Amino acid sequence: MPPPLIFYFDFSSPYGFLAAREIDSLAAARGRAVDWRPMLLGAVFKRNGVRPNLDVPLKGAYTRHDFARAGRRLGLEVRLPEPFPFSSVAAARAFYWLCDQVAAQAKAQPHARPQAQAQAKALALALYERAFLAGQDISRSESVLEVAAAQDLDRTALADGLQTPAVKARLRREVEAAIDAGVFGSPYLLVDGEPFWGYDRLPQVAAWLDSGGW
Amino acid sequence: MPPPLIFYFDFSSPYGFLAAREIDSLAAARGRAVDWRPMLLGAVFKRNGVRPNLDVPLKGAYTRHDFARAGRRLGLEVRLPEPFPFSSVAAARAFYWLCDQVAAQAKAQPHARPQAQAQAKALALALYERAFLAGQDISRSESVLEVAAAQDLDRTALADGLQTPAVKARLRREVEAAIDAGVFGSPYLLVDGEPFWGYDRLPQVAAWLDSGGW
Repeated sequence: MPPPLIFYFDFSSPYGFLAAREIDSLAAARGRAVDWRPMLLGAVFKRNGVRPNLDVPLKGAYTRHDFARAGRRLGLEVRLPEPFPFSSVAAARAFYWLCDQVAAQAKAQPHARPQAQAQAKALALALYERAFLAGQDISRSESVLEVAAAQDLDRTALADGLQTPAVKARLRREVEAAIDAGVFGSPYLLVDGEPFWGYDRLPQVAAWLDSGGW
Repeated sequence: MPPPLIFYFDFSSPYGFLAAREIDSLAAARGRAVDWRPMLLGAVFKRNGVRPNLDVPLKGAYTRHDFARAGRRLGLEVRLPEPFPFSSVAAARAFYWLCDQVAAQAKAQPHARPQAQAQAKALALALYERAFLAGQDISRSESVLEVAAAQDLDRTALADGLQTPAVKARLRREVEAAIDAGVFGSPYLLVDGEPFWGYDRLPQVAAWLDSGGW
């Protein structure tokens, strides 16, 4: 089995949301799994001296317009929560906490990681939908816990998890690893080492996988 | 006949080159003409406080990689001329000079503009190909004159034209008009007022025209 695609995203990224909805089925149709790696775009931007598009005068207005238009095309009424952008630290920590939890429970199984991620991906999509479909907050720990509870996850254990040094350190490591891998935006995909930046690159990713590259 | 699409681009924009190769046939297949409007991205960036992607550390490397990849997919061996980015003032002035020349000659005809643009578009594509296929300079007036001469244009008249206050003023007006229209990147398309930014939006432009929008 070829290695999984690596899907870097930030929970505060509107186009990350659109990509997250589609990437697993796009890859699965081509016999590939996807490893999801939430990271913090703020830290990435800081390192690269980049401002997010939404902060740039004309680009910001266009990006809001384009995101709504991209949503309509998919039959979705997308929204940006207020305030925007927002901190995605709690959401990202919750994701990795859940990965670690399920992986620990399934330690005996050699292929634990994909199973561990299935639950974490479901949580991620629920968080993303709260932010960009319901237009509600996912920046506060309390909001993340609500979404997790609605997914039948252990609210108390997660509340503790969000505060543990190991989970905080895990997210910091993941952000550093993303920066080291060259990630500078969200969504950002690595397909056998080949980088694709942006939701609008998904058709090209599909073509790349179909053809074996060009 | 519905109004033409408006195609804003900078002669120093690699993705502007890719879009210029395709936009007229994309539009013509849907019964639409395209009005080409070269502008100066430097002036636009300055107004918006934006740095070009190629100047941003990781984005620059990615953009070079992505441009080459996009070219390969089209069967093109694309290049970036050195130095890059370069001044596109002479190329843009030549374009508008030629539009004005041909329009003046055809003044009696009510539909002069599309005919005027046909020659100017051929010159634009030849300039673009010199820059991004041959990887050669188009920033100096001398280079622009060479390309024009190869297109059977009057080299001496163009050399004079590049220095006339009217042509200089025309380009300044076009740049201001582009900024006023909300343009902040290249390529940038207006389809009945609907903005589309980037070469990778062309499939969406086609879908928009096919469906009447969504």
